[in-house]
Amino acid sequence: MDVMTAIKERRSCRQYKSDPVNEDDLNMILEAARWAPSWANTQCCRLVVVRNKEATLQLAGCLAANNPATAALSEAPVVIVACAEKQKAGYKKGEAVTDKGDYWYMYDTALAMQNLTLAAWALGLGTVHIGLFDAAKAASILGLPPEVVCVAMTPVGYPTGEFRNPERKDLSQVVFWEKYGQRA
Amino acid sequence: MDVMTAIKERRSCRQYKSDPVNEDDLNMILEAARWAPSWANTQCCRLVVVRNKEATLQLAGCLAANNPATAALSEAPVVIVACAEKQKAGYKKGEAVTDKGDYWYMYDTALAMQNLTLAAWALGLGTVHIGLFDAAKAASILGLPPEVVCVAMTPVGYPTGEFRNPERKDLSQVVFWEKYGQRA
Repeated sequence: MDVMTAIKERRSCRQYKSDPVNEDDLNMILEAARWAPSWANTQCCRLVVVRNKEATLQLAGCLAANNPATAALSEAPVVIVACAEKQKAGYKKGEAVTDKGDYWYMYDTALAMQNLTLAAWALGLGTVHIGLFDAAKAASILGLPPEVVCVAMTPVGYPTGEFRNPERKDLSQVVFWEKYGQRA
Repeated sequence: MDVMTAIKERRSCRQYKSDPVNEDDLNMILEAARWAPSWANTQCCRLVVVRNKEATLQLAGCLAANNPATAALSEAPVVIVACAEKQKAGYKKGEAVTDKGDYWYMYDTALAMQNLTLAAWALGLGTVHIGLFDAAKAASILGLPPEVVCVAMTPVGYPTGEFRNPERKDLSQVVFWEKYGQRA
């Protein structure tokens, strides 16, 4: 699938069939994440692929019950949890070197996850970036060591149902020219 | 260009021709950023497109002189600065709702920037995510209001020279199965 098509047509999927994900396709989307760029190529992002049903239900239990993504995590055959090694992105010789401190791990994890979601869409697989959950609880379920933080997760599977297609702001509201607030 | 090809072949470009960027292509990559998903569709990311040579040189001056990206920002015909409205991503009813506080703006900005860099690559345009610079100085150059933070920037233009192709860790080092640290 063409890059621009994937970018424009990708949707956040919150309903999934229970069919298992093709093994080659699963590996392909993990490869896509692996190829993401990162701060000085430090590659802080780590992915945990969860297929054990008991574990995916435990992960779903880290979200509020009324979050539509909770059902998605329970239904989908695979859940991928994006984690990050701390004190890598945004660091130089052990020191944080920008005003964002250690939070470049958020940036780098997102680069990897966006690669993953686009590659997934091209393969007919649905995903949705989930950020609102009890990260400490998820970290405990996955056995994260103290130097690793849990950032985001996504169900992965064959989507079903209707996709919502939320509007985007007009380009003139989000893109400025030469100075902030200056329109074309 | 196929999604996976763009993901695997995209390189961080640090040498540019001075040729102006095709206007339609520039709009296309901004569109790609606009279509990125975001926290509850809050769309906190704002892009400032800078083509005025004096201004791009000022932005280059926000980096250390020995950073190879400094020359890239000076040479390229376009610089795009990714900014973010604070207290949108990661927030619900005005309150931060995760342990990452306001730093979901890093995640959402990266989603938009990864769309942009992939779309650019498919159009023959080079980019490189730059995070190590004086963000306060850049904010002042662009006239950012206090509720907006400067996150990252990239030169945009037709690349020249050799691309570095930094190695990635093996998939078995970055992907775990069921539990953190557990290999396939």
